[in-house]
Amino acid sequence: MICAELSNIWSCVSLPELLGSEKDLFDAHLQLRNNQPDGPNFLGFLGQPDQLTAKIIHAVRKAAEAIQSGGDTLVVLGSGGAYLGAQAGIELLLGKDRNLRDRLPRVLFSGDHLSGRSWLHLCELLDGHDFSLQLICPEDSAMEVFIASRALRWMMERRYGKDAKQRIYVSAPAGSAMEAMAAEEGYTLLSLPTEAGGSQSALSSAALLPMAVCGIDPLDVLGGAAEAYDNYDLRAFENPVWMYAGARYVLSGRGRNVELLCSFEPALSAFGNWWRHLILRWTCRDGAGIVPVSAVYPAELNVWDAMLTSARTPVFETLLCFPPESQKVNVEMDWKDYDGLGYLAEQTLGHVQQAVQDGLIQAHEENSVPMIQLECEELSAEGLGELFYFFELAAAICAAASGVDPFDPPDALPARKAAEEILGKPEA
Amino acid sequence: MICAELSNIWSCVSLPELLGSEKDLFDAHLQLRNNQPDGPNFLGFLGQPDQLTAKIIHAVRKAAEAIQSGGDTLVVLGSGGAYLGAQAGIELLLGKDRNLRDRLPRVLFSGDHLSGRSWLHLCELLDGHDFSLQLICPEDSAMEVFIASRALRWMMERRYGKDAKQRIYVSAPAGSAMEAMAAEEGYTLLSLPTEAGGSQSALSSAALLPMAVCGIDPLDVLGGAAEAYDNYDLRAFENPVWMYAGARYVLSGRGRNVELLCSFEPALSAFGNWWRHLILRWTCRDGAGIVPVSAVYPAELNVWDAMLTSARTPVFETLLCFPPESQKVNVEMDWKDYDGLGYLAEQTLGHVQQAVQDGLIQAHEENSVPMIQLECEELSAEGLGELFYFFELAAAICAAASGVDPFDPPDALPARKAAEEILGKPEA
Repeated sequence: MICAELSNIWSCVSLPELLGSEKDLFDAHLQLRNNQPDGPNFLGFLGQPDQLTAKIIHAVRKAAEAIQSGGDTLVVLGSGGAYLGAQAGIELLLGKDRNLRDRLPRVLFSGDHLSGRSWLHLCELLDGHDFSLQLICPEDSAMEVFIASRALRWMMERRYGKDAKQRIYVSAPAGSAMEAMAAEEGYTLLSLPTEAGGSQSALSSAALLPMAVCGIDPLDVLGGAAEAYDNYDLRAFENPVWMYAGARYVLSGRGRNVELLCSFEPALSAFGNWWRHLILRWTCRDGAGIVPVSAVYPAELNVWDAMLTSARTPVFETLLCFPPESQKVNVEMDWKDYDGLGYLAEQTLGHVQQAVQDGLIQAHEENSVPMIQLECEELSAEGLGELFYFFELAAAICAAASGVDPFDPPDALPARKAAEEILGKPEA
Repeated sequence: MICAELSNIWSCVSLPELLGSEKDLFDAHLQLRNNQPDGPNFLGFLGQPDQLTAKIIHAVRKAAEAIQSGGDTLVVLGSGGAYLGAQAGIELLLGKDRNLRDRLPRVLFSGDHLSGRSWLHLCELLDGHDFSLQLICPEDSAMEVFIASRALRWMMERRYGKDAKQRIYVSAPAGSAMEAMAAEEGYTLLSLPTEAGGSQSALSSAALLPMAVCGIDPLDVLGGAAEAYDNYDLRAFENPVWMYAGARYVLSGRGRNVELLCSFEPALSAFGNWWRHLILRWTCRDGAGIVPVSAVYPAELNVWDAMLTSARTPVFETLLCFPPESQKVNVEMDWKDYDGLGYLAEQTLGHVQQAVQDGLIQAHEENSVPMIQLECEELSAEGLGELFYFFELAAAICAAASGVDPFDPPDALPARKAAEEILGKPEA
């Protein structure tokens, strides 16, 4: 289980304040659980019968095998939590330079922009390569994904003729435009739950497919998540999800309206993108919500340190810790010792990193910087599934506790609507 | 010149409020300029005589040529504004997948972490490749850069013997430990200004070298910056830097303590990292400063839109606009029109992107979201130099106007100090 440690928040909030949030958290958690199985279901398939899960895993594995044998590249076009979750998982487990390290198939994420220049770059990456395509369309509103999909499907038709359809995988909820397209054109459909929570989840089949293509077993990810589903059901402050959600709740009540998710794991930048999307998507509406910011230490340590340890900052820290790496890499000897680090020679990087992390915790305790510590047990596919579940449940509880219905996505958003009007979209 | 447009901030602040900041901005700007040439110099070499600039450009060009002919890879180890600025420039002008598109030499940025796993990934990328090394060390406190430098220099010595030194480039200020190392070991030194502003600048030789290796002419970047140096010297609200700095100043006075730098240019994520570092490093201290957050639209449009258009958000928006691309890419026809975008067929991506941006501006005006618009003239090396200069000057003015001395970097930071104690650093 993920361990939540709150000993460094008491400079800012009191224990009675935290305990005072119990009723709100309890009601929120109960509301989420009671919604199953008829109402909106924030994690979609996780609460569904086992045979459905088995069916999904089987479909993902079969698709991954076909993609692996059908070429050296998978293009993923999409938007939302599943799209970002797939990137987060691949980077966290396999490193951010996986494609550059010639791991095959290359997985290229695109379709999240309207840039002609980036489109031409993608074409260059596909030139002379056999590729498959996955569309992740949890909603029908992402114009940029559809535009990219038109262009890529057209390119594939020219290149592969009527065999193109065997290379196209569509992740879309029942009743959506993309589901209809998949059925009509004979593309492989990986159905998404119709509920917003399920269709946007990093644990949905849409997110599991690109990970599986990279060799991350969906069964392991879901296994970790399913165990978390049981472990984090406890409705009391012994539950680490409650501790995290409760601490956020009371810190924001004290004017801390910016949360900095930080970690010493360099492969956490894509995970930070996923987490920011999750927090914004589910909890930041109608005047509620904490602004999510993410940072990777030690690269960003100095600049944040100067801000956090100064007075009147609106920021609190959530430090995500992972266990030491199994790879032992030593600091090299240098008998000339120009850099003055001779005292570290022959120590492992893991040891130094742990010390820098401990130094951070100690310094921020001394400087009364409120910090939530989340300690993960392992950096593995199971651990990833647990991590996704932990934050998805926490976000839903935070939203419900602050009066936002996390399953009620906003209507057509103002900016998109205005753009459609400018572009002359015909009335439906 | 970059055009600053403030018509969308008046829902939150008044014109007299903005004009009321004039004296503070004037004093801040004067203080910055008067510091030249004897005192701290926030842009380092830009204000120095032309022959020094010529010397620097010549040294950068020579180094870039040697790196290009000496192998297919440059490893850049470093920290700070110049290190982040080089990444920002390369991504903005050449796309974020430049290395993957087989552009040579590959430029690999590393040394900003303490992860053994990431180190092994880098070794894998260097296996079988001839490479050069650049160290960017504006300060002597970045332990992780030094640790990586030990390991790489050792690897190069084993591989290249006494020829290794010809492949090593050190960017460090006079009097620093790394400058001494370069002199003693016979590495090529690209001297950095000793002033914090100059040594951390994205316009320093340290940042220009990786860009030059990728084919971005340092003379073009500096040319754009030098023109900006003249253009943005005006001490009045006709100066777009003043408009930006002044708007930030009064918005933060109204409780808007989070700034969202957003753009529709997908290659702006590394630029966002550089900008966040710049704002945090120079302006966020001693209780002053606005928390910087960056986002790339339209990928993150929906989630931010929901937050920004809701009541009581602490966020204001700074939208960075670029002119339409020269590449014309059309939205493809699809007579079955599954996605309902038939009304866009044969329009260019640039046109659609412009409409989505206009929709955003219009919707956020209607919803009283304060927005600063910054319109750049071109996405080119000159434009990049101007952009770097614009934000560096603005950050320095914002800092000075809010009472923070931007040239007075904080002493050894609490977290680093505590880490050194834990690791048993000997007393100096």
